[in-house]
Amino acid sequence: MTDIVYLNGDFIEKSSAKISVLDRGFLFGDGIYEVIPVYQSKPFRLEQHIERLNYCAECTQIPLTITLNQWQDILQQLIRKNGGDNLSIYIQLTRGVAPERNHAFPQDTKPTVLIMCTPLNVSIAELSAIKVTLLNDIRWQHCNIKSISLLGGILLNQQANALGFQEAILQRENYITEATTSNVFIIKGNEIYTPPKNQSILGGITRDLIVELAQQHQIIVHQIDLTIEDLLCADEVWLSSSSREISPVVLIDDKIVANGEIGPITKQMHNIFQAFKQSLIN
Amino acid sequence: MTDIVYLNGDFIEKSSAKISVLDRGFLFGDGIYEVIPVYQSKPFRLEQHIERLNYCAECTQIPLTITLNQWQDILQQLIRKNGGDNLSIYIQLTRGVAPERNHAFPQDTKPTVLIMCTPLNVSIAELSAIKVTLLNDIRWQHCNIKSISLLGGILLNQQANALGFQEAILQRENYITEATTSNVFIIKGNEIYTPPKNQSILGGITRDLIVELAQQHQIIVHQIDLTIEDLLCADEVWLSSSSREISPVVLIDDKIVANGEIGPITKQMHNIFQAFKQSLIN
Repeated sequence: MTDIVYLNGDFIEKSSAKISVLDRGFLFGDGIYEVIPVYQSKPFRLEQHIERLNYCAECTQIPLTITLNQWQDILQQLIRKNGGDNLSIYIQLTRGVAPERNHAFPQDTKPTVLIMCTPLNVSIAELSAIKVTLLNDIRWQHCNIKSISLLGGILLNQQANALGFQEAILQRENYITEATTSNVFIIKGNEIYTPPKNQSILGGITRDLIVELAQQHQIIVHQIDLTIEDLLCADEVWLSSSSREISPVVLIDDKIVANGEIGPITKQMHNIFQAFKQSLIN
Repeated sequence: MTDIVYLNGDFIEKSSAKISVLDRGFLFGDGIYEVIPVYQSKPFRLEQHIERLNYCAECTQIPLTITLNQWQDILQQLIRKNGGDNLSIYIQLTRGVAPERNHAFPQDTKPTVLIMCTPLNVSIAELSAIKVTLLNDIRWQHCNIKSISLLGGILLNQQANALGFQEAILQRENYITEATTSNVFIIKGNEIYTPPKNQSILGGITRDLIVELAQQHQIIVHQIDLTIEDLLCADEVWLSSSSREISPVVLIDDKIVANGEIGPITKQMHNIFQAFKQSLIN
């Protein structure tokens, strides 16, 4: 039962949640979003997700006045109304409804706030290998903003899907950026490498947590630019996101990674991640 | 009176036109659009606009089965219900409402079709000089698709506005692409230059018409890549779009163009354009 959504202050049935066709989210993709996992009714890394939402609101100049405490309160109500347990929470904020369709920002519009839940796929806690393809990153130059103007990412994700792959790792010229909905990590000689945070990638909350946890466990992490060759010659490769946690990659197009097995550092990092998660839930 | 919109087969009040929060246009900017001027109740260059809409639907794999005749019929009804005369018609097509939010294309969704009208600013038929700024083109790499995932263009347009300019001409490295909602033309020695149609620019219907009309009037048109230097050293510069027709540019940041006056070729082209328009209306 995940049928209740929050829309601009009201808790309503998802099927009756509607917005004006003049909402700038609908006309311009003029909005931002967050996806937050909820384990046993507790939002995971909420503070970090809200911090990123605030950052993206600032980048796009969408006025956002909801405090962390207010978010906690709203989310707790929504989680309860949807039966609690393990959920994935989706928050979307748009610039709101303007009387006319003009590109430039309208005056005095009130942002639209939508929050929805879906059941969380708890099988993400089990390591499951995936196959990916390598595609050119056709998206815009501010991928650090978690924007709902997602057509570029969608076309890439769909292209990967249609070819039988679960994700696409993206490249700009000879460098890898991220995947369409996740960050990329590679292992070389027992050390972890991942591209640095910049305008070409979204600074994933799970990415940051993995870096933090690895360092706590004396695993060396390099945040540096990675070439296609680095990727294809890696000992292990995984993708990370709030929705997939850690997904080991065993095939990149026709190139087998790590002999097609889930590698030892991937398993170690997965165990560290799960232990940390459990420590917060209990 | 432009308060009636068309939404998925129905003609309804704009204020009551609402879509599900699960519409992919709202969640992903997963849609395309067209803006068509209507002069004295007649849509201008309708066939070309619908052809481009069909092209964009094909690029994005949004199934579109409405024929030109059906569009003509729907638009005539909508124009009549909104009092006719001079209007700007906005058509938006999204991938529709999917039961769940997943990046990859949903199965069997029905596209959402929205058509709205606003009064057409007929003063566009009078040449009015504008000031523009030059900004880096941060948008995606398929600007030939007229997509509603517009946040990049919006941020650029707003940046220009906030600086007191009416538009922003965009550059990728040392080349100009287009402006945020229009195409760019320059004049050098009585000849017209405009960037060629490729993935970095939207092939404007007005752009194409200007090229066609210029050639009919023995004015030489070059469709070639233009550098920033070409732009800043041009004798005349103008922007074109369905909404602005031809807008002479007299200032680019702090650089005065054509002595700050509307140049002779701009005036000639404007007269040719207005004469053609009148020939179709009468």
